Parts: sequence; structure tokens; C-alpha cells
Amino acid sequence: MSGNQLDKKSQAWSALFSEPMSELVKRYTASVGFDQRLWRADIDGSLAHARMLAAQAIIGAQDLADIERGMAQIVSEIEAGTFEWKLELEDVHLNIEARLTQLVGDAGKRLHTGRSRNDQVATDVRLWLRGEIDRIAPLLGDMQRAMVELAAQHADTVMPGFTHLQVAQPVSFAHHLLAYVEMFARDAERLADVRKRLNRLPLGAAALAGTSYPLDRHAVARTLGFDGICENSLDAVSDRDFALEFASFASITMVHVSRLAEEIVLWMSQNFGFIDLADRYCTGSSIMPQKRNPDVAELARGKSGRVVGHLMALITLMKGQPLTYNKDNQEDKEPLFDTVDTVSDTLRIMAEMVAGIVVKPEAMERAALRGYATATDLADYLAKKGLPFRDAHEIVAHAVKRAMQQGVDLAALPLAELQAFHPKIEADVLPCLSLRGSLEARRVAGGTAPEQVRAQVARHRVRLG
Amino acid sequence: MSGNQLDKKSQAWSALFSEPMSELVKRYTASVGFDQRLWRADIDGSLAHARMLAAQAIIGAQDLADIERGMAQIVSEIEAGTFEWKLELEDVHLNIEARLTQLVGDAGKRLHTGRSRNDQVATDVRLWLRGEIDRIAPLLGDMQRAMVELAAQHADTVMPGFTHLQVAQPVSFAHHLLAYVEMFARDAERLADVRKRLNRLPLGAAALAGTSYPLDRHAVARTLGFDGICENSLDAVSDRDFALEFASFASITMVHVSRLAEEIVLWMSQNFGFIDLADRYCTGSSIMPQKRNPDVAELARGKSGRVVGHLMALITLMKGQPLTYNKDNQEDKEPLFDTVDTVSDTLRIMAEMVAGIVVKPEAMERAALRGYATATDLADYLAKKGLPFRDAHEIVAHAVKRAMQQGVDLAALPLAELQAFHPKIEADVLPCLSLRGSLEARRVAGGTAPEQVRAQVARHRVRLG
Amino acid sequence: MSGNQLDKKSQAWSALFSEPMSELVKRYTASVGFDQRLWRADIDGSLAHARMLAAQAIIGAQDLADIERGMAQIVSEIEAGTFEWKLELEDVHLNIEARLTQLVGDAGKRLHTGRSRNDQVATDVRLWLRGEIDRIAPLLGDMQRAMVELAAQHADTVMPGFTHLQVAQPVSFAHHLLAYVEMFARDAERLADVRKRLNRLPLGAAALAGTSYPLDRHAVARTLGFDGICENSLDAVSDRDFALEFASFASITMVHVSRLAEEIVLWMSQNFGFIDLADRYCTGSSIMPQKRNPDVAELARGKSGRVVGHLMALITLMKGQPLTYNKDNQEDKEPLFDTVDTVSDTLRIMAEMVAGIVVKPEAMERAALRGYATATDLADYLAKKGLPFRDAHEIVAHAVKRAMQQGVDLAALPLAELQAFHPKIEADVLPCLSLRGSLEARRVAGGTAPEQVRAQVARHRVRLG
Amino acid sequence: MSGNQLDKKSQAWSALFSEPMSELVKRYTASVGFDQRLWRADIDGSLAHARMLAAQAIIGAQDLADIERGMAQIVSEIEAGTFEWKLELEDVHLNIEARLTQLVGDAGKRLHTGRSRNDQVATDVRLWLRGEIDRIAPLLGDMQRAMVELAAQHADTVMPGFTHLQVAQPVSFAHHLLAYVEMFARDAERLADVRKRLNRLPLGAAALAGTSYPLDRHAVARTLGFDGICENSLDAVSDRDFALEFASFASITMVHVSRLAEEIVLWMSQNFGFIDLADRYCTGSSIMPQKRNPDVAELARGKSGRVVGHLMALITLMKGQPLTYNKDNQEDKEPLFDTVDTVSDTLRIMAEMVAGIVVKPEAMERAALRGYATATDLADYLAKKGLPFRDAHEIVAHAVKRAMQQGVDLAALPLAELQAFHPKIEADVLPCLSLRGSLEARRVAGGTAPEQVRAQVARHRVRLG
Repeated sequence: MSGNQLDKKSQAWSALFSEPMSELVKRYTASVGFDQRLWRADIDGSLAHARMLAAQAIIGAQDLADIERGMAQIVSEIEAGTFEWKLELEDVHLNIEARLTQLVGDAGKRLHTGRSRNDQVATDVRLWLRGEIDRIAPLLGDMQRAMVELAAQHADTVMPGFTHLQVAQPVSFAHHLLAYVEMFARDAERLADVRKRLNRLPLGAAALAGTSYPLDRHAVARTLGFDGICENSLDAVSDRDFALEFASFASITMVHVSRLAEEIVLWMSQNFGFIDLADRYCTGSSIMPQKRNPDVAELARGKSGRVVGHLMALITLMKGQPLTYNKDNQEDKEPLFDTVDTVSDTLRIMAEMVAGIVVKPEAMERAALRGYATATDLADYLAKKGLPFRDAHEIVAHAVKRAMQQGVDLAALPLAELQAFHPKIEADVLPCLSLRGSLEARRVAGGTAPEQVRAQVARHRVRLG
Repeated sequence: MSGNQLDKKSQAWSALFSEPMSELVKRYTASVGFDQRLWRADIDGSLAHARMLAAQAIIGAQDLADIERGMAQIVSEIEAGTFEWKLELEDVHLNIEARLTQLVGDAGKRLHTGRSRNDQVATDVRLWLRGEIDRIAPLLGDMQRAMVELAAQHADTVMPGFTHLQVAQPVSFAHHLLAYVEMFARDAERLADVRKRLNRLPLGAAALAGTSYPLDRHAVARTLGFDGICENSLDAVSDRDFALEFASFASITMVHVSRLAEEIVLWMSQNFGFIDLADRYCTGSSIMPQKRNPDVAELARGKSGRVVGHLMALITLMKGQPLTYNKDNQEDKEPLFDTVDTVSDTLRIMAEMVAGIVVKPEAMERAALRGYATATDLADYLAKKGLPFRDAHEIVAHAVKRAMQQGVDLAALPLAELQAFHPKIEADVLPCLSLRGSLEARRVAGGTAPEQVRAQVARHRVRLG
Repeated sequence: MSGNQLDKKSQAWSALFSEPMSELVKRYTASVGFDQRLWRADIDGSLAHARMLAAQAIIGAQDLADIERGMAQIVSEIEAGTFEWKLELEDVHLNIEARLTQLVGDAGKRLHTGRSRNDQVATDVRLWLRGEIDRIAPLLGDMQRAMVELAAQHADTVMPGFTHLQVAQPVSFAHHLLAYVEMFARDAERLADVRKRLNRLPLGAAALAGTSYPLDRHAVARTLGFDGICENSLDAVSDRDFALEFASFASITMVHVSRLAEEIVLWMSQNFGFIDLADRYCTGSSIMPQKRNPDVAELARGKSGRVVGHLMALITLMKGQPLTYNKDNQEDKEPLFDTVDTVSDTLRIMAEMVAGIVVKPEAMERAALRGYATATDLADYLAKKGLPFRDAHEIVAHAVKRAMQQGVDLAALPLAELQAFHPKIEADVLPCLSLRGSLEARRVAGGTAPEQVRAQVARHRVRLG
Repeated sequence: MSGNQLDKKSQAWSALFSEPMSELVKRYTASVGFDQRLWRADIDGSLAHARMLAAQAIIGAQDLADIERGMAQIVSEIEAGTFEWKLELEDVHLNIEARLTQLVGDAGKRLHTGRSRNDQVATDVRLWLRGEIDRIAPLLGDMQRAMVELAAQHADTVMPGFTHLQVAQPVSFAHHLLAYVEMFARDAERLADVRKRLNRLPLGAAALAGTSYPLDRHAVARTLGFDGICENSLDAVSDRDFALEFASFASITMVHVSRLAEEIVLWMSQNFGFIDLADRYCTGSSIMPQKRNPDVAELARGKSGRVVGHLMALITLMKGQPLTYNKDNQEDKEPLFDTVDTVSDTLRIMAEMVAGIVVKPEAMERAALRGYATATDLADYLAKKGLPFRDAHEIVAHAVKRAMQQGVDLAALPLAELQAFHPKIEADVLPCLSLRGSLEARRVAGGTAPEQVRAQVARHRVRLG
């Protein structure tokens, strides 16, 4: 026996096959165009496998040395861009293995002992995704930090809090920003949970049933930094939960991004005018010379669709598949890769952009004065004087109606006029009717009073290091 | 001031409104048809709120006593089915509050002090969902137990392990079942993570900004069994992450169910004939007298679509919403309710049905004999004798080709004929070529060897209690 | 042989079954809770089938008379609410057939000749959906008419046209409304296409393979108003394309609704203030006395999620199903029913609400004056005087910059100052810089000039009758 | 004024901008990496625009000549691969326009007169997609033809028809294949409907409001082969219905592919063994030497997820967007491009593979003999002798039970034994109980009788040309 079987793949898959794969099939089924991205994980996994094989005396010390030498060469070729990826070798795994055998001969052919591409690819994707998770986690931290630091400057900046996009009650701009910090903090927790469940080693499951070689799977797991092994070989090769769960995390994160982006777009519009963005985050128009558009926020909002699309793709992919590995699963990679890229890029740019937001406190305050934002305070005032809250609510509705008819704010109604709605309204009502008075009053835990907001900022700063 | 403002809602929302809501709008916006399901959580939340209000001296002891008495009355009316739910009172919250005021007067009107429907509904849904999670978790346990106990009887039952639905290698039926136990175990972990993040109290956020009343939110949290409070009031009323995350959990779980269901359908088909289901889990046909159909498995597979549809609905719902509460959010309930019901019913019935599976070991073994399931064992045999695995693989492909041409299994080729493929094939090859020999050999951790499978069973039994 | 086999279903499905269905299974698989909604289509289909059976002499004239009499009785029972729907009879079909046999004996048992529930349900759903389509089409017409008539009053009302939610160019409010008319007109076309493909008769396919009875399928098709028959019996019973295509239509329609709803919410917010909604379309707040919220628009926006969720559910349901009928398909009904209801209710209420919009032209015009909406007009002015458009664009950017620094509109810059940017700017520039001048100038086909907009209105009025 | 403003974009978008775009923003917002694919449509659209501008005397004859010369040069550069695509020029439009201006000077700067990128990109995408539709339509034809021609050879090949994957009734393999022809025929109809609605010209809408130049939009529409113009300029630039509708078409088509693929995988499995695929459509295993896997079918099934993911991405993208153009819309391209590629590649390879299916009629027939496929025929036999169908159904259930107990087919029960179930069973029952007799009997329109199937084949051949 001699030669490199993988080299002959262009003629036939194996001796069992009487003709080469159709060109169309080759292109349709090849994954090397996108899965070469896994190369480093693939080599790391192979080296860990080879070292264990040698430690278990399944291959010889010289085989291991040859494999290590060959892999080092391959790493430098890939890094230098001189490695030739071949479509007819289908995927990243066979491309690397074929080159290894070319470089080191029989040792290369021994590397695949006790292993299959099924457990190999599952291992590669987990290793790769774990690395990406470890890059995304700090980006979620940066995003939070950017918002906390902007918030730190605006605990006293009053803006209208909205429900139904109608002016509801005054809130501080800082408090509003910190709502997003809560969201991204939950996203970070979810990401950590994904990592925890992901971090188990499939290698050793072989094709599906395990192997007759005395592999030491726990040793390989330790080498590669896994917390343990996948305990059932059939599950090991067919499980793609980690992809589904990561895509769920990513979709929820992008929903948060889309909400923030929506608000940035609103705040930038001339009708709100609450903020401005630095020129470097804006684009112009090919026809309208006056335009400065918040493209980044809009695009980020749009990209939520992309990520949820990938989640749906992955779920549809897995639905109804019998065990164990089916070729369908090759379709897990592109959605996963693009989800990782989209979330990473979006968090990076949003964090940078948020840090560059120019706040316009006067516009915010002006807007808060439209909409009778302190009406609830008046109702609370009455309730504190003993009226049942429901009655107080109704009395204030009458007062607001009068103020609307006059086109003025509640605070602008003369005291006598207010007292006509209820005699318990007295001079001490005035602070209740001011934006700042309203803000200061909401001192309940989690409320918008500046002291509460400052406490939030402090807590987040500690948490985020 | 007198009377019950809520009673007048059919005339106008409040004094501010000059006309009643259009009938069409009333029907379109009312949620009481579905959210009455939250009634117990709503009352529990109200009682906890009222007790805290009294403890903080915001309402009087008599008010609290009245509220408790009224609520007790309402509970018994709802349980007796005599409570009259009114469409014009929109939702579960106003229906209960209006009845309370009817029953106890001003104390009822004081209940809503320092509270809004925004934080109230967020609290209700979390309380309700936590209860449902605590009912689903044991169902996931039952599902696992059913499969573990079936597996316990079949560590030695050989079936063909499939990849690409082609016979790959012999596995034990127990090992196959246990792959699903891994999946459902991960689902249970995910569910626990959802619960952890869900279990924080929104109440006290009021409409969005917190309140000027000195509420003790931590006390309410303790009363209701929450681990803590939502730390930002704006986030508290607008956050629906728990619904998205629960729906993600449910979708992944249903993907697992759909895979198991697909296999049960396959195994029941005459072309597999691996199992039979008891008559009580089958249905017949209105036209074909011979039919016994695995309807439950098919329906469970189909219901995966329903649940992933709800996930998509919830994500689309939240995408791009500015803060804080928008009426869109009312649409979170029906998908969530139906997701809970579907997952619960499906797990319950699948666990019951799995327990009633009749296994046909001969059919499984017969199927394993078609497809050269031990070819890998022959390659491993050669590799262990020193051939590089890739060379061994190619040699065996030649042998399989010969056997196929003769229409026999590898084990049926005379030794001499096998040796023609490679001289290192000797008499000791025979055990490698048998199904049982192949099974026994896969002793690697997580492999399909009966001893490994029994260890899995033991481990799961301990874990599942 | 005697008795009514269907009555014995609670004991066993048929003689083949040794035990009754499990209670859990009965509840899980029963569809009568929701598919009773198909009752009229079911009876219409059965009557057409029976008449054809009689015409083909497959059943006798007396049988037909009995069936007709029995069905008339059943119709009156259902309409009167006295028909007893039984869970153990699974679905609408068996419930009606069992009652028929109870009422008329053997003739009832003959009705199912040459038919299966598989082709029966496919026929029922198509008949029912066709009826619903014929109810939704006029609603799409009403929606368009409401917008056209509102537009007819506002061809001269100037509002800021937005791109990126930034003020772009002045447009007329009518023109803006008419953009939605185009969308809903395309929806109506799509709906007609769905109907066209839906309107083929499955009945006669029997279980899957056709039947040995000499049925006249074309006669049944004519009776039921179908355009033809499903030409392949296997496809007839397994096809659910009509549900997928209807759900696609509905999703696109709801995307349009969600965009309109988003704008109504924006326009109602105090920061825009472009419109007001009548009180009967608004709701208040349980805590904030001043609130008037555009709940209907928000809910309609939210319901887009619901409908797209159903589309996703249906696609996931059908993905990867082997032919022909599988029980999974029972899951097609609830998403389809709810899609029909949601789209119908939403179109009805949106059309009503749009008709009640109060427009605030001054606020719109004021907003159009913020944002240098006529900058493009100045660039066009220069381009018409011979400058390459790109150069003109750049010159105007400089002018806008200057105006911004001074905090004034372009029209407020003295002519001399404008001329400093380019000498070709002369006194005739002024009309270009006014909102109305800009509007009038866009006389290109489909442009926003009032004359163009009036032409659109006229065209739509003719089209919509 | 001089120079090429677009060349200076790396410094600032326009004179209005005080700093260049951030590098991160440049990469995040640039689309030239994927939208360069639209280059030919972009140039075709520009030339049609330029010719109209000249015809309307908006630009001079020399300008047009320059533009035509420059564009010819650009076409040859792109075709030769020498065109330099620049990230800082954002997209395909600015890249081409900038190069044009470099080549021909002021004429290049005049090309954009009366046009915006908003209407330009809408036009480009429609032109491009129309071309792709015109390439996909014949692929749907090829797919149908491949199945019709395979069917033409198998009108008499008996296979078990399945419902619930249980043997139901005998059908011909041809009939089964033709069910898919119906599906793909409906897909082709839907595609034609998409094209019909897509084929309207947005150009002339300019940024959103139309333009003050006297453009002749109808002339441009004629030049570019559009059926008409988009009648409302705001709709023209914001409408992406064509993408949603195309993605809906593609999703339904891929659902059909996934069903066919599922069946091919089943039929190839050793437990069915109904067909074989040529080696050129199979792949082997890196570890199991005996494997021949139907990778293409599996991958096609998996790719249904990808396409439905894109549909969901597009719907989520558009949901809730206010008018008119928002940057979100840039995200429409990649899902659309990949949908086109996936559907095209999948149809092409599936048609090729179907043509290469090797049918194994004996295995099919053998499988049809398992499962009492002719039980319905026996019930029909009795019903034709006067028994009510429901009674006949029940009698046959008893007979099947007996046969099952004896482990034989109904046809193998002695006549006397059959007669014990009902005296009307006589010697003429035998043909009813044979597979072929059953097949022949289903002569109803659309039934599986060979004569009906041949009629279907003939009809399709005529239809498909």
C-alpha cells in the first residue's frame, strides 16, 4: 500500500466508488470555502488528539514528532497565505490532513486513528465558538461601560420618560441609559451560560459509537481546556444545541441593540433633537446636501433581522433530524459564523458610537414639559393627603383637561384654579408639579431619583471592573 | 368624590376622554379573554403589595384587612366560576380591582397606590411563568427517567447506528436512547437558567420611573419568593427577555422532541419495524381498516413548528421597540401561554408513550446486519496491526466492494478471501466482524459498549434521584 | 352488522385495536376544540359528495334524501348551539358523521364511500379559507379607500418627507398616505393569487391514492365552486401550500400595517404632534391621569409578530415531511385560523381608525421647516444653470453649513450671502427655497406635486370603485 | 469648482462634515463587498437614465456620448477583473460613478441629475432579481421534466403509498413522483406572480419625493423592459415587497425540496432500499469504509433552513420601519442574494440527481406487501355489495386482525376464512386483494391507476414543452 488516498479523491471517494463525484456535487457539498476559518481549532484539536494517541501508545513517538513538525509547517503556510485550499478535498479537515500526509507521510495517515470527521468537526466548532465567546464577552462589557460612563454625566439631565411614545413622567437620561445596561448585563449572563454548556469535548465519539482504541478522552479535554467530555457518543456527534443556544443569545442581544438603535434614530431626528452624533458616525446623501444620517444605528437595527434569521435557519435545520450525524448539519456553520461576526461588529461599533453621543439637555427638558409629565405627582400628592388613589387619579384627569384647554402646563394653572378641583390642594403642591421635583421624589429602589441613579452607576462600575 | 371610577369605564376612560372606546377597539385591545389565566398571580402580587403598603404605613391596617377580605372573596368566586369577567374592564387587573372596590370600597381604590399596570403585569407574568417552570422541570425529569428505564433493559440490544440514515456501526438501543437523555438534561439546565434570570421583582417600578411612595421593594420580593428586585425601573416595565429566553428553551426542547418523534415514526414503519406502540397511543383511519398510526409522535413533531413560531413572534414583537412599555407588549402573553401548554402536554405524553414502547430486538439486529456495519472494525483491526489508518480504510473499501458484489456480509467472506486484501488479516479477525464484538469493543468513555452504557444508566439514575 | 361504529370509538378505534385510546392521547390529538369552526364547509363538502354519489348511482336516492335531511337537522342544531361536540370523536368530521348516522342510520354510514378524512379535511380547509379570503379582500379595499379619502383632503398639506427619519424634502401628507395605498393594493393582488391557486378540489383523492368508485370529481368541483381538481391524489392530501402562501400574504400585509402603525405612533407623540386620534381609539393609564395612548396602532404593530410567527410555524411544520398525509398536518389549522382572524380584525380597525385621524397641518409644516428640506432644490437650481450636479451638491453643502452656524433656514440667508457660494445664484432662487415651491416643482410622474397627487387619488378612486 | 468630490470622500462625506467617517463605520456600513454583484444592472440603469436625460435635453448629446464611452470602458474593466472596488466609496453605485467621472469628467458628474441612490438601488435590485427569476424559472422546468421523465418509466412500478409513514395503499412510483411535479408547477406559477409585481420602475422617485427635472419615467421603463412605473415615489424607494415575496416563493419551494430530499434519504436507507443513487452523487466516510451517503439530498434538506431564515430576516428587517428609505434596507441584499443562489444551485443539482436515480422495483413491491395495503379494497368490495361503508370498514378490521395473528397477508387467507367475516365475500374478491388489482382499480381522475398516471405524464409533457 502506498500513496496518499486523499490525493486520489478527485478520482473516487474510495475503492468502493466507481466514478468521481460530479463537479456540481463537489461544489454543492464542499465546505472548505467557509470552514477553513476553523483551521486553527482543527490543528489544535489534531495535536491534542495526536499527543494523547502517543501517550496511550496508539501511535509512536516518531509519529507524534512528525505530526507536530508537519502541523507547524502547515500553520506557517496558512498564516503566510501560501496554503493551497482545494475544493476537491471538501473541507478544512481533509485539506489539512492531506497536506500533513504530503509533508510527513505515514504519520499523517495515522492521525485519524480512533477519530472521525463527525467528532472532529463537532470539536472544531466548539473550540472555535468558545474562542469567539471569549472575544464577545468583553465587547458586552465595553458596551455596558460606554453606557455607564455616559450615564455618569447625566444623572441630573431630565428627559421625558415615555410609555406608548407618549410623555409619561420625567426621568433622568442616565436612568434611561442604565436600562440598557441591565439588558446587556443579562446578555452577558446568558453568554456565560452558553459557554458553560458548550465546553465539553465530543472527540472520542468517533463516527458515532465511540472507538475500540483506548483513547483517554479526559486527557484530551484537559489539553484543550474543556470542562469535561460529552458523555454519550451518539449525542456528541449529532448535538448542535450550542449553536441554537448561541443564536438565541445573539438574537436577544440584537433585540436589545435594535431597541437602542431605534431610540438613537428617534433622538437624532429633528422632531426630537435630543442628541447629536459625531460626524464620523454619520453619512450624507448623494442627492440631499443637508443630510447627516445615523446610518450606524439604522444598520444595527436592521441587522437584528439577520441574526434572528440565522436562529430560525438553525432551528429549521435541526427539526426532525433522526440521529446521528446527517449532512444537513454542515449548514450549521455559515449562520453561526455570520451571527458571531454580526454581533461582534455591532457591539464594537455601538459601544464606540454611544461614547460619542452629544447630549442636548435643553431639548430633552423642553420635551418633558410637553405632555403633563407631572400629573401622576399631583395624584400622588392627593393620595398622600388621604384620597383613595383612584379618586385622586380622576380629579387630576379633570385638572389636566382644563390645562389642555388653556394650552398650559399644570404648573402654570393658578393655585386657586387647582384648588377648585380639590380643596386639599395647597401651596405645597408646587414642587410636585416641577420636573425636577418629580424626579427627586422617585427615590424608591430602582427609581429615577438622581441619588438612586448614582447608586446604579456606582454598582455597575464595581461590577464591570 | 364617590363611586367606582372603573365602573364608569364604559362611558369614558377618565375625565380626560370625551367619548367611550369604540366597540371594535374594546374587543381588539381587551386581553381579559386570555390574561384571566394570570388571576392567582395577580392576587398574590396585590396582596404582597398591600401588606407592604400597610407595613410602610402608606395605607391603614383597616384598608389591608378590607383588601384581604375582598381578595379572599374574589378567589372563592373565581374558583367557583361565578366571577364575572367583563370585556369593558379590559384585563385581569382591572377586573379584579373593580370587583375589589365593589366589595370593599375605598380600600380597593387605595390598592393601586404606588403601582401601575405596567409593573403589575410584569410581576404577574413572572410569577405565573415561574410556577409553570416549576411544573415543567419535573416533566423533563419524567421524560429522562422514562428513557433511562427503557434503556436499562436494552444495554445489550443491538441496533444499527445510523449516519446519513445509512447503516454505520452497531450500537446498543440503550445507548441510542441515552443520547436523548443528554439532550433533555441540557434542556433542564437551560430551564433552570431561565428561572434564575426571571426571578426578580419588577413591582415598584410603577409606570416606568419608580414612585414617590416609600415602598419596600425588597420586602415584596421576599414575600413573593423573588431572589431580588429589577434594579432599574425603566427596564423593569419594558423587559420581556424572560419570555424570549423561555421560548428559546422551549424551541430547543421541541427540536429534541421532534428528533425523537421522527425516529419513533421511522421505527414504527413497516420498513424498520424496530418497535411497536401500545394501541392506546395509536389511531386508526376512517377509510383504511388496517391502519395503526403513531399519531402522537407525528403531532409532537408538528408541534415543534408551533413553538418556534411563538419564538419568532416574540422576537418580532420586541424588535425595534423604543422604551418603555408599549401596548405591543400585550402580545407577549398568548405565545407564551401556548408555548407553556404545548411543551408541558408534549413532555407528559411523550414520557408516557416512551414508557410503553415495545422493542423488537430481532428486527433491529437483522437491520444491523445489512450495511457492513463492522467495516470500521476491520479497518481498526488492520491499523492496530500497524497499517496507517488511511491505508487500512482503503483496503477495507476493497473488501466491502467484493462482499457487496457477492451479496454477503464481510463476516461471510472466507478468511482466505479476506487475506487476499491484506496478509495481516488472520483468524483473530472474526470477533471484530460480529455485531456484538463490534459493540463490546467500543469501550472508550461515552462509547456504546454495554459496560459503558450501564455506567451511563447508573449515573443518570443517581442524578435523577 | 349493526350499531354505529363511531359510537364505540371510546372503547377502541376499530376491531383491530385492543384497548381504548389513552385519555391523555385523546386530548392531545383531538382537534374538535378548534376545527369545529369548519363545520359549514364540512357539511357543504359532504352534501356535494353525497349528491355526486347519488348521481353516479353509488348510493341510492333515498340515501341522499336521508343524508340531506340529517344534515339540515345538524345545521340547525349547530346554529342553535345545541349540537354536542364530543372530544372522543376527535374532530369535526367524525362528530358530524356520527350524529348523521344517529339521525338517519345506514345512509349516514354510506356517506364516507370513496372518501377519506384526508381528502375531506383538505377540502374543508380550502372551502373555509376561500370564504375568508372573500371577506378579507373587501377589508383591504376599505383600508385603501380610507387612506385615499383622507389623502383627498391633503394634497396641499406639507409635511417633512423623511429618509433615515431625518428631514429630507417636503412632501404632501396625501402623497405619504398614498404610498400605503400602493402597498395594500399589492397585498390585494397577492391575495387574489393565493385564491387562484387554492381553488382546486382535493376531494376524490380519498386516503391518498384515489378510489375505485367511479366518482365524478369535476361535478363536485363545479358544485362547490372550485376552478378545477387537484390532478394528483397524493399531492391533494399532502399539499398545504395554500396555507403557507396565505400566511406569506398575511405576513407581508402585516409588515405594511406595522409600518403605518409605527408612523401613527410617531405622529401622535408630543415630539411630532402631526395628528390626533379620536378618544374612542385611545386608552388611558391606570396611574398617569394625563395619558391618551394610541393603543390600537401599537397593538396592530405588535400583531405583525403573531402573524409572522404563524408563517414560521407552518413552514417548520411542513419541512422535511415525507408524503403523504402525516398527523403533523393537523397543526396547520390553529395558525391559519388565527392568521385569518388577526388580519381581518386588524384591517377592519385600522381602516376605521385612519378615517378618524385629525390632521394638524401647522405642526407638519413647522417640522418641515426644520432640516433644510429644500437644499436639494438649490442644488437642482444650480444644476439647471449648467453646473454638474455633483459640484452643485457640494456648493449647497457649504451653504447649509453656513445656515446651520447661523441657526437659520436657507431661505433666510440674504441673497448676497448665497451668491458668495456661487455667482449663478440669483433672485429667481427664492421660490426654490420655499416648501411649497419645492412641492410644486416635483411634477415628475409619481412625484409629490399636488397635481400628481390628485391624479393618484383619482386613479385609485376609479380602481376601488 | 473642480475635482471629483467622490475622490475626497475619504476626508469627509461633504463640505458639511468636519471629519472623515470612522474606519469602523466605513467597514460596517460599506456594501461594496456584496453589492458589486449588481454592477451590470447598475450600468444598464444608468445608461437608460442618461439616454432619457439626453432625450429630454436635461444633459447634452456630448454628455451622453461621454457617459456611454466611459461606461463601456468600465464594463470592460469589470469583466477583465481590473476594476478597482474601493471600500471608502461605500457601494457599487458610487464606485462606478466615481470611476466614470475619473474617465469622462463633468459628464460623469451630470449622470446623477434627477436621481438618488435610493431610487437607483431599488432599480438595480429589481433589474438584477428579474434576471435571476428568468434563470430560475427554467430550472423549475428542468426539475419537473426530470421527474416526469423518470415517472414515464414507472407507471406500472408498484410501491407502498404511505400515510403516517405506515403502509396505506399501493401506488405507482410514477404517481408518487408526479405529486412533486404538481408542487414545482405551483412554485413556477408563484415565481411568475413575483415577477409580475416586481417589474415596475422605481427610477424617477429620486430621494423620495420625485424630482423637479422633467424626467420621462415611462421611456426609461420601456428601455429597461419594465411593465410600468412605481406610481408613488415614496413607495418606490421604501418598498421591498418583491424581496419578501421572492423569499416566500423560495421558502415554499425549498419546503418541497426538503420533502423530496427526505424521501430520497429514506428510500436510500438499507431499511427501505427503494432506490440507489449513482456514485457521483454520493460521498463516503473518513472512517467507515463501507459508507455511501446521499449527501446531496441531506444538504438540500438542510438548506431549506437557510432560505426560511432569510425570509424571516427580511420580514424582521422591514417590520415597523417608518417611511421612507432607512439604512436598515441595505440588509435586504445578502439574504436575497443567498436565497437566489441556494434555490438555483439546489434545483440544478436535484434535477440532475433525480435523473440519475436507479429504481429497485422488487424492493418497492416487497415493501407494499407488508402492511395490508389492500384492506381498503376489501372494504370497498363489500360496500359495493351493499354494505354501508362504515360496516364494511369494521368487518375488514376483524379480517386484518386475523391475518396479523397468522402473520400473513389478507390475500393469503383462504376464501372460506374470509367468508367467515361476511358471507358476501366471494371468489371474485381475489383481484381486489392484489397490489396490481388495487392499483388498476383507482381509475378516478387523479388516481394512481396506470392509465391515469400516463395521462398525467402526457399532460405535463405538453405543458413543459
